[in-house]
Amino acid sequence: MNLYYIIDICAVAVCAVTATLEAGRREMDLFGVLVVGLVAGIGGGTVRDVLLGRLPVFWVYDPLYVMVATGAAALTFFAARRMTLPRNFFLLPDAVGLALFTVIGATVALKLGTSWVIAAMMGVITAVSGGIIRDILCNEIPLVFRSELYATASLAGGLLMIGLLEMGLPRGQVSMVTMAFIFTIRVAAIRWRIHLPRFKGAD
Amino acid sequence: MNLYYIIDICAVAVCAVTATLEAGRREMDLFGVLVVGLVAGIGGGTVRDVLLGRLPVFWVYDPLYVMVATGAAALTFFAARRMTLPRNFFLLPDAVGLALFTVIGATVALKLGTSWVIAAMMGVITAVSGGIIRDILCNEIPLVFRSELYATASLAGGLLMIGLLEMGLPRGQVSMVTMAFIFTIRVAAIRWRIHLPRFKGAD
Amino acid sequence: MNLYYIIDICAVAVCAVTATLEAGRREMDLFGVLVVGLVAGIGGGTVRDVLLGRLPVFWVYDPLYVMVATGAAALTFFAARRMTLPRNFFLLPDAVGLALFTVIGATVALKLGTSWVIAAMMGVITAVSGGIIRDILCNEIPLVFRSELYATASLAGGLLMIGLLEMGLPRGQVSMVTMAFIFTIRVAAIRWRIHLPRFKGAD
Repeated sequence: MNLYYIIDICAVAVCAVTATLEAGRREMDLFGVLVVGLVAGIGGGTVRDVLLGRLPVFWVYDPLYVMVATGAAALTFFAARRMTLPRNFFLLPDAVGLALFTVIGATVALKLGTSWVIAAMMGVITAVSGGIIRDILCNEIPLVFRSELYATASLAGGLLMIGLLEMGLPRGQVSMVTMAFIFTIRVAAIRWRIHLPRFKGAD
Repeated sequence: MNLYYIIDICAVAVCAVTATLEAGRREMDLFGVLVVGLVAGIGGGTVRDVLLGRLPVFWVYDPLYVMVATGAAALTFFAARRMTLPRNFFLLPDAVGLALFTVIGATVALKLGTSWVIAAMMGVITAVSGGIIRDILCNEIPLVFRSELYATASLAGGLLMIGLLEMGLPRGQVSMVTMAFIFTIRVAAIRWRIHLPRFKGAD
Repeated sequence: MNLYYIIDICAVAVCAVTATLEAGRREMDLFGVLVVGLVAGIGGGTVRDVLLGRLPVFWVYDPLYVMVATGAAALTFFAARRMTLPRNFFLLPDAVGLALFTVIGATVALKLGTSWVIAAMMGVITAVSGGIIRDILCNEIPLVFRSELYATASLAGGLLMIGLLEMGLPRGQVSMVTMAFIFTIRVAAIRWRIHLPRFKGAD
């Protein structure tokens, strides 16, 4: 599980960095930026833990998450004053985070004995709710509600993972396949601008 | 309790449907609509369970709620492309949901031995916080903060229910009376446009 | 602990009053104002308790908090129709609340055996998240993300408190010193308009 832990910490840092860049556009001060970065990094797992009753939440007795997220946000805050990062610099690392958070979230739920519906949902919650809270703090409609197959990739991956585990395949390999699957869908969706249908209501 | 369960599931579906229609006006994609519908349907009970420490929250081991809410939201999403629903179609079902959620929320709190203040508050929280989170996700000031006696009907009903139980009346009849009371206040308030006073501050 | 309890109740009331004045500017009705006041008063401690797993949250079995917060909000709601309060009337009481909430939050976390990182964070969460949720309900970017050393004072105070406790000083005196320290920083920051640096991103 050591490798997962390292990727997990890296994914938290990536989320914090991208959130910081977004928060910066809103004229927040350093504290606002740190909160937004922190929430983006650890918010998803926090919501999952609260809903499942795994309390205190995962970072309370493992402060490395908090330190990495705020450290990454602070570094970005000061670095952004000196140099320009290409807008899409973090799209690929972010897709890795999406994949990993989904696998972790669904695994946690399955271990608690939830049904597959709830396990897939917890994968999505872990992957996207940090970003949702980040956007609420920035006073915007959550980006994930209209971006290219972000939550959809997470949901599809979670369902694939549950199906493969149900077939008796070993957990380690299933996790790897699932992560590759989510990453591929997300990157393909960005590349070819694939969206879910938008709502078309009658006024 | 079977009848309550059926009404409860129906109320969750109604909340999801009305939220979907509202979310649609914001140009969200299918995922955004499903999240908003789901949150509107099960958000109130979820907040109540977290505050009271009844974890995991009620739908984790009863995925029917999640399936009904997302199913109703998805159906609405596709149906809204083909036909127009009259704007007020769901006002009456929604008033039933308001009444039922209040009774369930207050009952849950009383069973945990809380004081009447907290029990009445939990009735209101169960009834309105799903809609509040829905509106936050849609980036709007919560509708319930200015609509016709919505939360007020819930609060008055909760207090009535607690009073009647205190007088020793049987729980089943008290629940029925309370629900009729809340429904009547809400419908009367819509019919005659009765509002709470608005804030008039000095600038 | 009796004196702390009294100050705590007063701090909750002050938060509720200032939030009510802010909510009023958004044209909410009485219910909206009460919710915003209540959330501002008890929201910070509630978030802290949920994250730490201290459930039910602190006010469930001590309804005085809820009664004081809603009572203060209601009084403000009606008083604001008759008279004008100077805009800065509550800055000093609010700084007392900031100091006290920080000390309480960090103390609660330390008693649960968390590391100093998390304890300092819980002090800040207790002090500022009520105001953050208040601003989200009012559909604004949280004020604390750009005001004069608000969260910063809380964080510095929390770290000071932990350091002094680590040196073996008695808890009562440490609390007093910490509160005076936070209060002083906050008031000085307001007086001389000291801000954290703002984000300057490259577009």
